[in-house]
Amino acid sequence: MRICSVHRFTQTAPDDLSQLKDAIGSGKLDPAEIVAVIGKTQGNGGINDFTRGFFTQSLFLHLAQHLGQPAHQLQQNIPCVLSGGTEGVLCPHHSVFTVSHQDPDATIATGPRLAIGRALSRPLETAEIGMMAQVRLCAEAVRTAMADAALDATEVAFAQLKVPAPTAQALASVAIGGRTPCSLDPKRAMALARVAAAWGVGVALGELTLEDLNEDQMLQDTSRFSTKASISSGVEVDCAEVVVLGNSEQWGGHLRIASAPMADALCLAGPLNALEALGLGRILPLPPEQRERIRAVFVKGEPDRSGTLRGNPHTMLNDTDIDPQRHIRGALGGAVGAVVGDGRIFVSGGAEHQGPDGGGLIAIIAEAH
Amino acid sequence: MRICSVHRFTQTAPDDLSQLKDAIGSGKLDPAEIVAVIGKTQGNGGINDFTRGFFTQSLFLHLAQHLGQPAHQLQQNIPCVLSGGTEGVLCPHHSVFTVSHQDPDATIATGPRLAIGRALSRPLETAEIGMMAQVRLCAEAVRTAMADAALDATEVAFAQLKVPAPTAQALASVAIGGRTPCSLDPKRAMALARVAAAWGVGVALGELTLEDLNEDQMLQDTSRFSTKASISSGVEVDCAEVVVLGNSEQWGGHLRIASAPMADALCLAGPLNALEALGLGRILPLPPEQRERIRAVFVKGEPDRSGTLRGNPHTMLNDTDIDPQRHIRGALGGAVGAVVGDGRIFVSGGAEHQGPDGGGLIAIIAEAH
Amino acid sequence: MRICSVHRFTQTAPDDLSQLKDAIGSGKLDPAEIVAVIGKTQGNGGINDFTRGFFTQSLFLHLAQHLGQPAHQLQQNIPCVLSGGTEGVLCPHHSVFTVSHQDPDATIATGPRLAIGRALSRPLETAEIGMMAQVRLCAEAVRTAMADAALDATEVAFAQLKVPAPTAQALASVAIGGRTPCSLDPKRAMALARVAAAWGVGVALGELTLEDLNEDQMLQDTSRFSTKASISSGVEVDCAEVVVLGNSEQWGGHLRIASAPMADALCLAGPLNALEALGLGRILPLPPEQRERIRAVFVKGEPDRSGTLRGNPHTMLNDTDIDPQRHIRGALGGAVGAVVGDGRIFVSGGAEHQGPDGGGLIAIIAEAH
Amino acid sequence: MRICSVHRFTQTAPDDLSQLKDAIGSGKLDPAEIVAVIGKTQGNGGINDFTRGFFTQSLFLHLAQHLGQPAHQLQQNIPCVLSGGTEGVLCPHHSVFTVSHQDPDATIATGPRLAIGRALSRPLETAEIGMMAQVRLCAEAVRTAMADAALDATEVAFAQLKVPAPTAQALASVAIGGRTPCSLDPKRAMALARVAAAWGVGVALGELTLEDLNEDQMLQDTSRFSTKASISSGVEVDCAEVVVLGNSEQWGGHLRIASAPMADALCLAGPLNALEALGLGRILPLPPEQRERIRAVFVKGEPDRSGTLRGNPHTMLNDTDIDPQRHIRGALGGAVGAVVGDGRIFVSGGAEHQGPDGGGLIAIIAEAH
Repeated sequence: MRICSVHRFTQTAPDDLSQLKDAIGSGKLDPAEIVAVIGKTQGNGGINDFTRGFFTQSLFLHLAQHLGQPAHQLQQNIPCVLSGGTEGVLCPHHSVFTVSHQDPDATIATGPRLAIGRALSRPLETAEIGMMAQVRLCAEAVRTAMADAALDATEVAFAQLKVPAPTAQALASVAIGGRTPCSLDPKRAMALARVAAAWGVGVALGELTLEDLNEDQMLQDTSRFSTKASISSGVEVDCAEVVVLGNSEQWGGHLRIASAPMADALCLAGPLNALEALGLGRILPLPPEQRERIRAVFVKGEPDRSGTLRGNPHTMLNDTDIDPQRHIRGALGGAVGAVVGDGRIFVSGGAEHQGPDGGGLIAIIAEAH
Repeated sequence: MRICSVHRFTQTAPDDLSQLKDAIGSGKLDPAEIVAVIGKTQGNGGINDFTRGFFTQSLFLHLAQHLGQPAHQLQQNIPCVLSGGTEGVLCPHHSVFTVSHQDPDATIATGPRLAIGRALSRPLETAEIGMMAQVRLCAEAVRTAMADAALDATEVAFAQLKVPAPTAQALASVAIGGRTPCSLDPKRAMALARVAAAWGVGVALGELTLEDLNEDQMLQDTSRFSTKASISSGVEVDCAEVVVLGNSEQWGGHLRIASAPMADALCLAGPLNALEALGLGRILPLPPEQRERIRAVFVKGEPDRSGTLRGNPHTMLNDTDIDPQRHIRGALGGAVGAVVGDGRIFVSGGAEHQGPDGGGLIAIIAEAH
Repeated sequence: MRICSVHRFTQTAPDDLSQLKDAIGSGKLDPAEIVAVIGKTQGNGGINDFTRGFFTQSLFLHLAQHLGQPAHQLQQNIPCVLSGGTEGVLCPHHSVFTVSHQDPDATIATGPRLAIGRALSRPLETAEIGMMAQVRLCAEAVRTAMADAALDATEVAFAQLKVPAPTAQALASVAIGGRTPCSLDPKRAMALARVAAAWGVGVALGELTLEDLNEDQMLQDTSRFSTKASISSGVEVDCAEVVVLGNSEQWGGHLRIASAPMADALCLAGPLNALEALGLGRILPLPPEQRERIRAVFVKGEPDRSGTLRGNPHTMLNDTDIDPQRHIRGALGGAVGAVVGDGRIFVSGGAEHQGPDGGGLIAIIAEAH
Repeated sequence: MRICSVHRFTQTAPDDLSQLKDAIGSGKLDPAEIVAVIGKTQGNGGINDFTRGFFTQSLFLHLAQHLGQPAHQLQQNIPCVLSGGTEGVLCPHHSVFTVSHQDPDATIATGPRLAIGRALSRPLETAEIGMMAQVRLCAEAVRTAMADAALDATEVAFAQLKVPAPTAQALASVAIGGRTPCSLDPKRAMALARVAAAWGVGVALGELTLEDLNEDQMLQDTSRFSTKASISSGVEVDCAEVVVLGNSEQWGGHLRIASAPMADALCLAGPLNALEALGLGRILPLPPEQRERIRAVFVKGEPDRSGTLRGNPHTMLNDTDIDPQRHIRGALGGAVGAVVGDGRIFVSGGAEHQGPDGGGLIAIIAEAH
């Protein structure tokens, strides 16, 4: 029986691996058991955020020393999904997922436990990014990850993907080459890359039907979304990296995951529902003993495209100085951080077609009773 | 018997007075009763934030038409305390405070009710800003406002001040003139202006003793703070503008105010304590009928200067792209916005010596039962 | 015979009119002769830049006192074209254009002299912005301004327009109303508004043919551009405001204008050609006596969309922290500022279809010999 | 006889070493001859700019493969001085300096040629940064570098240093430990680190006398400066890294360096003087054959602290959205880029006590005739 564990390490810089090194050094973390990493680095989260790549390079260099495999080879096997931007109370950190094996008779689990599957697609061409070709590739990769975890569609709670974002130069090259990229604007292309990945998740989970989708609906028809997808996009990857999480009777250990939709950026019901589903109650502030059971929190959201929030104007979409994604991460980090009493939250903006327009998703991993 | 009422208006631009105009037009708001305005505009909240001045100019121009007095004269009588920065879920809005008079026999109030006092100091010289001279001037102005409200020190819940911030040019001029300004760095001078005002509140309320204070302690000895002060600083004012709020048996109406300290930027106890003190309960999400009783929310906070929050690193103080005050406003707005279910919150960063280091203050005005 | 004069005033804040007031007070500037204002304010130049509106309000309030007309009426007759963003060495300032009349016999002009025409279109609906409807309206307004100046197409050196930019909220409202706005993204809509205005200039000057243009070419077919257009877009106007400048034998005085294309953002030939055309020579640094003859400088440019500049990568288009327009204004201001030895330059980004891709335009007004 | 050569490589990302790899692969660059690297990366140039560290890690990892030495050991021998921030037209690039040896009889040099010396100090403690202790350490390291180059003080044209910048957390730790750091504000500490290094250069070159300097003068007495110092500060180094450049009869090859002061941010005389000293003339635009002789350009400057530039206000020091250093780099890059027709310029802000207040320094390396 497989057991999935989560180790959460904070950082003062993208190449600060001191907590990870300590955990390996003290035997708490066996590097050979690492299957995936999901984390926040402290860059701006946009095209020119190189903190994600710096962390990735630093991490795999270090693991290579322990595992005796070249860094680039490890990188092709272990999804390392990073989101830039630790605005406000958010703490740069990463959750390291490990899988160990256990004698099934010894298993004490009395219900479904945290299961993890991962997959990496082939590299995407720039011309495929943000197009239906990417939707198909992502759907296939999510199915591979589900099979890896032995999870069926109803058991999946959360699918985190990292997909490539093209630079202005790359997009211009495609156009010069006679093909039509999804957009010449790198910010828009980054958004379309997230849409295509979200649709890939929706198709793999049966929430969406491939035949009903087309590129004209992207960023337009907000009714076509996945309720389990959380997508990041960045220049530091060249393929789609997939981590699928759910609960399964076939997995052991002490952890469970719960996810819940967030209706908008002021929604407390989402976090409270997820806490309740994990047996942590709905009383805030959370008692310390409940708070300590939480092992990881993932939030996805975006500024309401109407420019209003519960009937009042917000300013996130009209700001030339602070990117809308930076605004929303700061707000959601503040809200969910206050609920769980901790800034070590993965909050990612850019929730296009990931939940309803203006809303998003929260997923929490906690120790079961 | 006096009654203080609060009208809250949102804006899509600093010169958007449509909601105020509607309220005056429909008779809901009598412009002659306006005694103070506290609001958030959508600028960056720093030295070069001109949205505060634009709103002020627009507001008094409009009121001048109704009241038959020149705008500049109204401006010298009505404190208009603005804080720039509506990061994340925050909504640009302003609370207009009015005072009306009522036959004491008709009063239905069964306990202390919202009381307001205001004062404006003489104009400050640039060389006085951020110095003990400003502390003394602010203390005097706060005492004047308390007398205006007939509030004693124990009844004051919240003192909001707006004080001048000098530009780099103004500071350099002082230095050229042979005097020593508090700093040549306008950001630091802006912070020192807030400190001096906070100390003025502390002295007026008996929390601090003038003789024990000196300029060397500013931004250094964080143990010397006021628990009721919320200070904004900006280039658009030349004097200290003071609004003091509290509860008093001598005032009537339906409103009450409660304030509570916030221990840090993840603190939910502060907002919940303030809600409870107002009889709104501690159950989140707030039921709609309780939420609707809330008339105004004021929050003050700042990034913890240790660079950590509950033991984990935050990145607010090291960021060259987003000002620390913009970070903290976004986070606190997200947290308190989720608690009250509304983005119309006055959140102000720069809480130096206003509450404990890394923490701050929340004040809520709500209808009494 | 008409004479066009230019008065240049600097500002420390958008409502700082001290230099203008001094000029009026001392009789150097007759407010009744003001026909147009073109200036730079110190905001971010984007959708949420309210420094332009603040200056406009302050200016017309002040002029209203002198001219005995309501501010809003003056505003409907005097184009006030503002561009936000004074990055780097740029100085917030505005050029006030006046027209006086002179006995033709007394005229000493020995060649064509600076001529100015202006026009304001009817208000644009949000749904028209960035569409062919706007192209037609702008072409008509430019023709009206040319007639006002008695300039034919070959005599026009420079056409500065200010056109409305819609907010996210306004665009969403159009979509909700069943019409299709040019884009739901306010930054993109702002760019399309500039394109439509530039095409309007091109059509009016015979550089482009209305029938050959359509919305699909906007931001795509960069070969369709005007060589005389400089367009700003902002939320503070609701109609197209047009100022057309050229040289004409029918005008007197001492001033002339010259414009020249800029091939790219490193182009010195453009500024040097314009200086030479005005008889100021090509020797840098400019001798003080030549520098003092310069009365106004207007520059338009944009980041090369290929992501490279003379074969080397630039980073302007991929930056999440600083808007590309802020980058390019800072660079062009540095270059042209060094050439003319002065930071009082109108530099505007967003040169889509205003000159060749990646390049732009410079226009200089100087005293003739 | 030693020969110093310069190879200039551009980058599309901090870990993009494609041009360096090509040069090594084709035999144009012998990695064993590398003695120093000076470059620009595309981060924000502030405390939280990790692009410098990412480039450094990537570079030394790659060189380690070629040279058979561990990366960390190479890093202790080869100064790698990076400045973040490629605003406007600036191109991310780095200049790789190599030293080769030549039969003195074969030397064709007919005058002094480019000489390079380098040194790395011991690691600095956080409490030493920005203090007189750092001044002494830097002076010693500069003298070591001069000896390495066999340059005397009169022959030095340019001294580029990289010194550590402390984070808010590190500064707070010092204070908690009972020592007094130079400042608790990381931006101010970064500035003081630059001052201390500049003074170290001034002392080593005999421009300043150690006994006359003290910490109270830092950022105050702007008359105490070095005319040859260019200092960068960043979190990615823990010691002072020094590269000294000059011209010497003891060196051969084809390159020479010239430096010239820049009086202010609009100064063209500085660049023209440096070009002239190298025999490149003063005619702009530079003819292509002269432009191609230029191998590297280094510029240091800063916003004038008076808030004005040639009598007109600038806005760089009052901006909450764009850091003053980002403003000035964009402007100087635009000006010098236009002069040399190239965006591959090392422009560094933060010129405190490096040249006169508000001004700076330019150094150009070019092929001799």
